Amino acid sequence: MPIDIVVDAMGSDKAPDPEIRGAVLAARHYDVRVHLVGPEDILRPILRQHVRHQKHLPVFITPASEWITMGDKAAQAVRTKRDSTMRVGLKMVREGLASRASSQAGHPHSASGPGKAAGFFTAGNTGAAMATAKMVLGMLSGVDRPALATIVPTTRGTPSLLLDVGANVDSDPDNLVQFAVMGHIYAQNVLKISNPRVGLLSIGEEDSKGNALTRDTLPLLRALPGINFIGNVEGRDLFNGNCDVTVCDGFVGNVALKTSEGIVKLVTTSLRESLKSTVTSQVGALLSRRAFDDFKKRLDYSEYGGAPLLGVRGVCIVGHGSSNEKAIMNGIRVAAEFAHAEVNSGIEATLDSTAAVDTKA
Amino acid sequence: MPIDIVVDAMGSDKAPDPEIRGAVLAARHYDVRVHLVGPEDILRPILRQHVRHQKHLPVFITPASEWITMGDKAAQAVRTKRDSTMRVGLKMVREGLASRASSQAGHPHSASGPGKAAGFFTAGNTGAAMATAKMVLGMLSGVDRPALATIVPTTRGTPSLLLDVGANVDSDPDNLVQFAVMGHIYAQNVLKISNPRVGLLSIGEEDSKGNALTRDTLPLLRALPGINFIGNVEGRDLFNGNCDVTVCDGFVGNVALKTSEGIVKLVTTSLRESLKSTVTSQVGALLSRRAFDDFKKRLDYSEYGGAPLLGVRGVCIVGHGSSNEKAIMNGIRVAAEFAHAEVNSGIEATLDSTAAVDTKA
Repeated sequence: MPIDIVVDAMGSDKAPDPEIRGAVLAARHYDVRVHLVGPEDILRPILRQHVRHQKHLPVFITPASEWITMGDKAAQAVRTKRDSTMRVGLKMVREGLASRASSQAGHPHSASGPGKAAGFFTAGNTGAAMATAKMVLGMLSGVDRPALATIVPTTRGTPSLLLDVGANVDSDPDNLVQFAVMGHIYAQNVLKISNPRVGLLSIGEEDSKGNALTRDTLPLLRALPGINFIGNVEGRDLFNGNCDVTVCDGFVGNVALKTSEGIVKLVTTSLRESLKSTVTSQVGALLSRRAFDDFKKRLDYSEYGGAPLLGVRGVCIVGHGSSNEKAIMNGIRVAAEFAHAEVNSGIEATLDSTAAVDTKA
Repeated sequence: MPIDIVVDAMGSDKAPDPEIRGAVLAARHYDVRVHLVGPEDILRPILRQHVRHQKHLPVFITPASEWITMGDKAAQAVRTKRDSTMRVGLKMVREGLASRASSQAGHPHSASGPGKAAGFFTAGNTGAAMATAKMVLGMLSGVDRPALATIVPTTRGTPSLLLDVGANVDSDPDNLVQFAVMGHIYAQNVLKISNPRVGLLSIGEEDSKGNALTRDTLPLLRALPGINFIGNVEGRDLFNGNCDVTVCDGFVGNVALKTSEGIVKLVTTSLRESLKSTVTSQVGALLSRRAFDDFKKRLDYSEYGGAPLLGVRGVCIVGHGSSNEKAIMNGIRVAAEFAHAEVNSGIEATLDSTAAVDTKA
């Protein structure tokens, strides 16, 4: 039974081309029906070219007359662009949830049909996507604030989840505890890590190390039942595979993420310059090109297909503005996996049982 | 006129070997007299081996019976180890300052003599070094808290200063303003950047982006006279050369720094594995070895010789625990440059004039 995923066709820096190509790829490779949301007059001719010889590919267009750009102020655009691709797409997710809830029997995703979807992907304005998702979908029960989670590669080859990377700033300890629960469930159900090690991002492993926020959060996380909490972890643990889920305030997570992107660029630029500087190296570089391609693939964030926004009532994945067709395809795959895994019901159940423990204590 | 620099001989992970070798190298290459502080019975025989054929090299031993290890709790060790290498070494800096202050005439460094020094370097326990420096040297007038500053490489090849990277957590806006002034003066006088661009580390360039701390700090930095403040900068700007001095809270700076270290390790590990995986690449790697060596040197933090602790009344440089002899030599050089540049009087004068503006306003 295919699952319906809706894609913001006007989100990425080069929209709608990567979105249309990515949707076609996803429809070919995965058991999904893809709904591209955007202005029909722009999308239709391009889509027609791409599906010329495969007329039965399940890629559809849902009309929306407006879209939010990277330059738009998120709060204002969400308020004024009432027929935006993001709002129309996320409404389809809300409708899909509502109809699934009302259909008592059958496969959990069978009720999605015209105008209904199980998940949403956008490579557009992150702030606007988060605000729209919060407004249209609402929050899961027990969650005060959503968190944007990103998957980072590690030296052990395993993926690792970092959250929050920018949905909130100035979080309080309760927020971080909720992030830990959400990350734990996502890692277990989508990344298929059986007993994910959850760490609190700090500046030293000892309990005494950290700032006021982490020192107040640590005992709450230690007391959390059912979570494999390993204590404070440091910035280097994000990439060494010692930790599967790393929890932090959105300001800190966003700085860590952008710092990482910056240093990867520094390292690759330096290496390229060093290789250029001698004739022997030029030959060497030529010969080792395959290795470089493999290396780039290992570090390629697009392989992971975007960051899930956890805590909203529905499935919303946010990709990088520079997403190419492969990244879009992977984003659609991740949205389908997220929806299949029933992550959100798991989050609500865990937070509910945690609250019960709180009340007993 | 040589300048006297005192070195904690028992600080690094492999002490005292790198310290002794580094001191000998520094005495050979720079116009410095190096004082190694530590247990004479351990240091004397090793030093003798290294200076066998160069008996006139200005490397001396100052006795200290105790030293603080990496495993020691900083606060406790500083209190109980009263004859530690750090305390003895930093007292020499205090004495050097006192005697320079009392000698009205002559070269500013000429008054350093037996038991007196113009700067201190340690590759030991960072927390203990900071606490000892604060206790023994005291703070500069106008500075509430010291900041640990680190120099990071950039894609443009220019160095960039990041502070605070861990001397404090939970800073307030006034602390960050003082960090900005200290970083500005250090960049100008030691890194020789004529009009350093100072940025505030945040999660977006717009003034509205950031957390409560950065939003409160931004207008204070905009109002600061004589500082080339360029507004909010992001994690990626640390390494792209767009900013010369980046100011942040010590928790955030420490996370950014350790994240960078982690990803550099990830990148180099991934690349090595990718190169190993094909025969062609093995040949390629062999041929491009020179380029790799050059590349490693570009990213090598040891080239920069350690992090200055800014804000204390004296010169204190903290190196990495894994410092080798070259890193120690560079640390001694940086301590000498810091002392020569009269950074601290510049910081006091600038903060004093800023305070005057505050009062007028």
